[in-house]
Amino acid sequence: MDVLVPFDAIDPKRRLEPVLGADERHDFAEAMLADVLEAVAGGGGDPRVVATADVRVAAPVDVDERPLSPAVNDRLARADRPLAIVMADLPLATPTAIARLLEASGPVVAVPGLGGGTNALVVREPAFRVDYHGCSIRDHRERAAAVGTTLTTVDSYRLGVDVDEPADLAEVLLHAEGRARAWLEAHGVRIVHADGRVSVERSPGD
Amino acid sequence: MDVLVPFDAIDPKRRLEPVLGADERHDFAEAMLADVLEAVAGGGGDPRVVATADVRVAAPVDVDERPLSPAVNDRLARADRPLAIVMADLPLATPTAIARLLEASGPVVAVPGLGGGTNALVVREPAFRVDYHGCSIRDHRERAAAVGTTLTTVDSYRLGVDVDEPADLAEVLLHAEGRARAWLEAHGVRIVHADGRVSVERSPGD
Repeated sequence: MDVLVPFDAIDPKRRLEPVLGADERHDFAEAMLADVLEAVAGGGGDPRVVATADVRVAAPVDVDERPLSPAVNDRLARADRPLAIVMADLPLATPTAIARLLEASGPVVAVPGLGGGTNALVVREPAFRVDYHGCSIRDHRERAAAVGTTLTTVDSYRLGVDVDEPADLAEVLLHAEGRARAWLEAHGVRIVHADGRVSVERSPGD
Repeated sequence: MDVLVPFDAIDPKRRLEPVLGADERHDFAEAMLADVLEAVAGGGGDPRVVATADVRVAAPVDVDERPLSPAVNDRLARADRPLAIVMADLPLATPTAIARLLEASGPVVAVPGLGGGTNALVVREPAFRVDYHGCSIRDHRERAAAVGTTLTTVDSYRLGVDVDEPADLAEVLLHAEGRARAWLEAHGVRIVHADGRVSVERSPGD
């Protein structure tokens, strides 16, 4: 299946500013993208990056300067077969998790992300369009209903945990195995324990 | 399979203090427990609550005043067949998710929770013991290795999202269907959008 992987190549992962500088956010975002592309290919998908500027990765890249939703919707409108959309900030993704997504049946299949996001979609219903703004999983349920179909979900932590905020970096260090984890380790980001959930800190000088 | 559901009946869910009062935290925790027990039974498990004080629920209750890890380990030491442990704060749990857990093969099967937790376990290896303190998923991996076996994981968002912090309440409102969600809605807790992930606010007076 064709799998779009949208990527902000200009100013990615702004909410990681407390931990990473601008160039670092760019490098780390590219590491996550590379991990996602590898998982998509390993899970049986044919990945294509849709990026706001050129990026060098192991997949074809379309440069499209439009915001996320119109860039994806234009491709949905032109698609003559099922199309999947997988976010680029899912470094916990594995080939197995991607295969579960691509093999799940249903006209619109979604993986909910933390905080109301829609981290992955398989769209087999030609009339369905995305809206990633706001509480997108709720909006996508309503949009599926509005075109006479039903959104079904795939229950996956590996695809449900996207990396937006500093605490999410702990998930990468705990559960990912690829470039994004290696990048964090090489840049001094490590797990810290407190009461409750673990978080991260960064070594001075790293 | 026998499924232990440990429950803090004395002072549950302290990190929800910014949103819920002490009595409310108790009522909400019991609503989550009831949802979990229903999912466990629906998923093919035989639930038994291990609570720090008596609680009225639709399952047998053992009162055990010890902390979580010794209370569970005592039962693991006495078990003569596989035993599962499922946390009581997983109101997104469904029978399907529980069935995936109970049917997953392996001597020690775990569902990682947000921030390094271990939200559910199936223990078929008699020598394995738990330690829920700190970054438990990492500790449980090491403990499985120390008794000559391997911890495998089940990839589930519905079991991976536990409810500890106010932002987690948004997950309940978005993805749960049972008593915990109804309790939040009846007490004025609702989704709010900002940039990025959604959160919750509470109506004045509720």
